Amino acid sequence: MNTNTVSRIKFIKQPTSSAWLEQALANLDTILLDHSHCERKAAGVALNLMFRYPSSTKLVRTLTAIAQEELQHFEQVNQWLERRGIPLARLDAPPYGSELNKQIRRNEPQRMLDFLLVYSLIEARSHERLGLLGAHCPDVELAKFYRGLMASEARHYGYYWILATTYFETEVVNERLEELSEIESNILSNPFPKPRIHS
Amino acid sequence: MNTNTVSRIKFIKQPTSSAWLEQALANLDTILLDHSHCERKAAGVALNLMFRYPSSTKLVRTLTAIAQEELQHFEQVNQWLERRGIPLARLDAPPYGSELNKQIRRNEPQRMLDFLLVYSLIEARSHERLGLLGAHCPDVELAKFYRGLMASEARHYGYYWILATTYFETEVVNERLEELSEIESNILSNPFPKPRIHS
Ligand SMILES: [Fe+2]
Ligand SMILES: [Fe+2]
Ligand SMILES: [Fe+2]
Ligand SMILES: [Fe+2]
Repeated sequence: MNTNTVSRIKFIKQPTSSAWLEQALANLDTILLDHSHCERKAAGVALNLMFRYPSSTKLVRTLTAIAQEELQHFEQVNQWLERRGIPLARLDAPPYGSELNKQIRRNEPQRMLDFLLVYSLIEARSHERLGLLGAHCPDVELAKFYRGLMASEARHYGYYWILATTYFETEVVNERLEELSEIESNILSNPFPKPRIHS
Repeated sequence: MNTNTVSRIKFIKQPTSSAWLEQALANLDTILLDHSHCERKAAGVALNLMFRYPSSTKLVRTLTAIAQEELQHFEQVNQWLERRGIPLARLDAPPYGSELNKQIRRNEPQRMLDFLLVYSLIEARSHERLGLLGAHCPDVELAKFYRGLMASEARHYGYYWILATTYFETEVVNERLEELSEIESNILSNPFPKPRIHS
């Protein structure tokens, strides 16, 4: 299965393997459940950033919009779970998020830059993978749903990127993005064995 | 100034003093800024509870709706700040929230019950105080805005209450509510000196 169609996303060094896509398509119920957790986490992350930088007006405004959209996605994914009779349940998370969070430097202003770029990368990867599901999912309705979300996630990684360049010099941002996107692809090159959005 | 009009709220042992209302009306800009923090915290609290109980379907569904509404309120209060030229800024919080959080027992299932009742009480108190601002604020537009929010906060305390009675026996819930609402009023009987929604 050709997974290279969305490799033009500039934030992504290594496109997703066809092995990931095959595993995901063979385990759509688990992927949907994991996806629900991802959307809730995406809302949580946006809100947490607002708690850290409550006086940064542009950041607060952008993240409010992102958090609202992520909660909508969360609700929509949960409706899909219900429709397919999948109960809400905990799932062990792949190391992707925690490994990326480890890259966030402790001191300001580097910390803010790293937060914004790490979340931008996660959104970019989500965009890529939802796009693959949208292109290859055999359930036509579900595929359409994924394509809709994919467009949102593309906006989100753009928003995080714009925030980064709002508060930091473009050169500094680009240099750090280069490092982090290398790391992001490396994390995924050692796949988590279970089917997950970010395995 | 008569502040007894909303003392019929059953969750509230002691109605808000007229001293609070006078201080609030004399410091509307600070109250608006504090209110912005309250709405963000309300969204954060709803989201945090979902992270704690991700498999409780009814809880997740209700809290998703609350979090979405709180984010809308947050956005609306921030628009009021902008309109009045008040920049976003940190504010030291009154002890109200942290004192109430100390009441939450550590072990399940008591912890879940206490979370739900504490948040219900906070929403009930917000409802009462936004109602007072809605009735007495000299800015007609702002008063109208407060009255709109007041209705939402009334729904929210009802939602938390319903969740409590969904997962626990009504008798157990009523008994614990009795204790916590006593504590809630006691906390406020020792007022925080600065103008705050929960001072
Ligand atoms: Fe999303
Ligand atoms: Fe997103
Ligand atoms: Fe609210
Ligand atoms: Fe509320």
